[in-house]
Amino acid sequence: MHDDSISEPPPLEPGTLRVIPLGGLGEVGRNMTVFEIDGKLLIVDAGVLFPEETQPGVDLILPDFEPIRQRLGDVVGIVLTHGHEDHIGAVPYLLKIREDIPLIGSSLTLALIEAKLKEHRIKPYSLTVAEGQVEKLGPFELEFVAVNHSIPDALAVAIKTSAGVVLHTGDFKMDQLPLDNRLTDLRAFARLGEVGVDLFLVDSTNADVPGFTPLERSIGPVLEQVIGAAPRRVIVASFSSHVHRVQQVLDAAAAHGRKVALIGRSMVRNMGIAAELGYLKVPEGVLIDAKRATDIPDDQIVYMSTGSQGEPMAVLARMANLEHQIEVGEGDTVILASSLIPGNENAVYRVINGLTKLGATVVHKGNAKVHVSGHAAAGELLYTYNILKPRNVMPVHGEYRHLYANAKLARDTGVPEKNVIVGGNGTVVDLRDHVAKVVGQIDIGMVYVDGSSVGEISDADLKDRRVLAEEGFISIFTVVDTSTGRIVVGPEVHARGFAPDEKIFDEVIPKIRQALTEAAENGTRDTHALSQIVRRTVGRWVNTKHRRRPMIVPIVIEG
Amino acid sequence: MHDDSISEPPPLEPGTLRVIPLGGLGEVGRNMTVFEIDGKLLIVDAGVLFPEETQPGVDLILPDFEPIRQRLGDVVGIVLTHGHEDHIGAVPYLLKIREDIPLIGSSLTLALIEAKLKEHRIKPYSLTVAEGQVEKLGPFELEFVAVNHSIPDALAVAIKTSAGVVLHTGDFKMDQLPLDNRLTDLRAFARLGEVGVDLFLVDSTNADVPGFTPLERSIGPVLEQVIGAAPRRVIVASFSSHVHRVQQVLDAAAAHGRKVALIGRSMVRNMGIAAELGYLKVPEGVLIDAKRATDIPDDQIVYMSTGSQGEPMAVLARMANLEHQIEVGEGDTVILASSLIPGNENAVYRVINGLTKLGATVVHKGNAKVHVSGHAAAGELLYTYNILKPRNVMPVHGEYRHLYANAKLARDTGVPEKNVIVGGNGTVVDLRDHVAKVVGQIDIGMVYVDGSSVGEISDADLKDRRVLAEEGFISIFTVVDTSTGRIVVGPEVHARGFAPDEKIFDEVIPKIRQALTEAAENGTRDTHALSQIVRRTVGRWVNTKHRRRPMIVPIVIEG
Repeated sequence: MHDDSISEPPPLEPGTLRVIPLGGLGEVGRNMTVFEIDGKLLIVDAGVLFPEETQPGVDLILPDFEPIRQRLGDVVGIVLTHGHEDHIGAVPYLLKIREDIPLIGSSLTLALIEAKLKEHRIKPYSLTVAEGQVEKLGPFELEFVAVNHSIPDALAVAIKTSAGVVLHTGDFKMDQLPLDNRLTDLRAFARLGEVGVDLFLVDSTNADVPGFTPLERSIGPVLEQVIGAAPRRVIVASFSSHVHRVQQVLDAAAAHGRKVALIGRSMVRNMGIAAELGYLKVPEGVLIDAKRATDIPDDQIVYMSTGSQGEPMAVLARMANLEHQIEVGEGDTVILASSLIPGNENAVYRVINGLTKLGATVVHKGNAKVHVSGHAAAGELLYTYNILKPRNVMPVHGEYRHLYANAKLARDTGVPEKNVIVGGNGTVVDLRDHVAKVVGQIDIGMVYVDGSSVGEISDADLKDRRVLAEEGFISIFTVVDTSTGRIVVGPEVHARGFAPDEKIFDEVIPKIRQALTEAAENGTRDTHALSQIVRRTVGRWVNTKHRRRPMIVPIVIEG
Repeated sequence: MHDDSISEPPPLEPGTLRVIPLGGLGEVGRNMTVFEIDGKLLIVDAGVLFPEETQPGVDLILPDFEPIRQRLGDVVGIVLTHGHEDHIGAVPYLLKIREDIPLIGSSLTLALIEAKLKEHRIKPYSLTVAEGQVEKLGPFELEFVAVNHSIPDALAVAIKTSAGVVLHTGDFKMDQLPLDNRLTDLRAFARLGEVGVDLFLVDSTNADVPGFTPLERSIGPVLEQVIGAAPRRVIVASFSSHVHRVQQVLDAAAAHGRKVALIGRSMVRNMGIAAELGYLKVPEGVLIDAKRATDIPDDQIVYMSTGSQGEPMAVLARMANLEHQIEVGEGDTVILASSLIPGNENAVYRVINGLTKLGATVVHKGNAKVHVSGHAAAGELLYTYNILKPRNVMPVHGEYRHLYANAKLARDTGVPEKNVIVGGNGTVVDLRDHVAKVVGQIDIGMVYVDGSSVGEISDADLKDRRVLAEEGFISIFTVVDTSTGRIVVGPEVHARGFAPDEKIFDEVIPKIRQALTEAAENGTRDTHALSQIVRRTVGRWVNTKHRRRPMIVPIVIEG
């Protein structure tokens, strides 16, 4: 049972390592962990979280930088474990505060963040590292360990300090036949474990999934079969950073003599980077420019697109609404080679229904094996615990159901219960003499990005938005002569999202007028007090008469 | 490919049967089909649809009664196939228009709708029927056929007319070892098929699920095992009408010497009805009043509740937020013995995370076999087609992906392609001389219930609500002397859901003032034209300066 009541941590003693997750615990996204020892800070990842339906209008959610805002001068670097948005997406916002924090990551990871930073007109300091490499940054000695994930070139990082050794997995799984033959390096895990890992921060995303994640290469034959049997065009949608998934689409297309056109800005950009760096191996002559695709006969083309989550503005949703230049029709085959992220179901099914109605055959993970996860399932995590034998464990990356499931796996493999820490964002853990313990809990907020505003939108604004969404609003404007209390203008009643016909307010206007007149007769002159009277009058009417609770916005001003 | 462009159907000729689905095609819910021959109408089901996240604030969606509103006097009856909300929920709204339309259904179905109508103070005319029974209503001869579903006492209905025979399955599956031994009557299907079924309207909900729905009774041993191993309290959540699921919980509790308390108003009401009518067999002494439950030791009680879909006001969500008198804690076990309806994922996971954080073990269909569907999967539908050999098929009950999958199963079993009709709501199908064909498409709207309003909220209001939800609103109130064009009061700028500090509007107020003054100088006096000027001024500012698009509500009035 996790207790997240706020309690100030003690001052940090020299020689003690402090670990504070600023995001990614109790949620899937905005992963960020801060390590501090002897006055210096190291950050691992700085990602974004995508909003839920209860956070309307929010574009992104950032980790809360507040606890380290005054300490950014002491940060020796940001280690980026891999190039997914939930691990790198907040870097531009952090560098806008201090631009010269060095970024440390693998070659693909840095190429992806650099392309992103370019859009923000930031050129970062960066240090490219590879598995096996050791780097010293102030009091931190970093050793990088290859891990397998749904994007190439992912790294775990061992952080060695005078206080002990931490291993942070980043996101990982243990595909034993990965497409690039780059395995999660269990030999390195074994070696680190033999020396002794004091604190293990481990990906929990699939900890509640029994068994093992299937091989990425098990998808290839399914893609080959579907593409081989397709009578007309094939459109495949997936994540724009999933190099190995795209690789398998290219290979399957090549096997059946089809050309592939990449569509969607991020798909084109990321695959360009991946091909240039050698992570994507494009079969000779297979890739063609999307502009040329219409010259190719329908049974010789594959479109590789984004939009697998039903995002309304992405290519696939526009195709389903016939709003894209590629007009999907009878005989076309659409493959959603992707997961279905919780919360996106209705949007994805809307796209599938739209495409089906246009006559396309839609293949997705619900009816074919066209997706595998990028995260270690429970069976793989057990291997990890057994080979590592960590002294202390803190599950990271996941909602509480994932963190608790992961904690149970740690205990099942023999990690003593007291050494398994289920924390949340802001849980302060100190490590010293092989002992890790919770020493405090600091307050961590949600930092909402909306348009060009960062952190301005509050939870109260979101609550207002939810009320507006549920019931709309009624605004009542009145100008009152405060010397006499007489109504000079109004009451003007307007509403949006509430009722199609504002005539229904004819009934309440006399009530407002009467209430204000009575208040004036009783000597009330304060506009705030008068506006509360308007609120109560309208609220009572709408509630009894219409059984609804729209937002009521009464404005009374002096005139 | 389904074409839903509107086209007026021809006048109905005597001796021809017309079939019009008013809801349930292209959606999961608000099932309702109208049959007409020789001037008389028969309705099968009148259910509600639950709103999606794109329909904020909507309580329910009704079938569109408009096409039959003027014909209700000719309706001979409403057949209710079973007691689920998506088949009976719209009946009160229909009876509010004509109260004496007879309801025809099985004993449990009628008991459930009568309890519902009582809340609306309607006492209906009703006719209780059972499987095997034949009833004549005007030109329609109805034969009722037992079907198995996730609620007892469900019926399919064969509608025999001079134009031919229709079989409507309602919702069904083909559990071969149902708890109540009441099988879907394939002998009756065979007999009807031998005589000849001209049009088969068949449940599509699980048509895209390969294979067979597992047995309901396969859940029993899992419930027994979990309840047997639970150290403290057990809380089971499911649908309040799932009599057989509750039966299995009662039996498992009894097997382990536990008492069961029903909680949640609909659970108590429905199980009371089911027990009274003999559908729920309560083991001696097992059920206790919820008020007495706290007297029972923690390891001897099971709470049976609602809220399995994460509904915020239901018992389970309140428990997860510690807002219910039953305080969930360490050692408690919660079982979600239910499906996860698309769109509810985040709400359900919020509840699971909350309960996990409180220390409870949460068992759900993601980690244990505690749910089976109530609908026939593809394998079962194939049996149905083969035993029935219908002349014409129209899949009903489902989104387009379901309807198309079902249509394919029909074709796979040999129904000629031209005899398989994939239609939508409002598709008009005429049957005569064993031939069913689409003769028109009428317009079917969404009828939203919000509070006490029915059909008042329009799609435009919902669009307003979505804009308000995304970005909030800015209202600008100005009183202008229309003789001079001079601003008398304002501009008063207010916003909700947009920004926490209204000071940001200090910047735009002079711009509004200037724009209105310039307009006045150019002789503009019309308040509507002036309000458009305000809209453009504020819109341009908020868009360039803040990159956002809130709703802008400019109000300019004469003063």
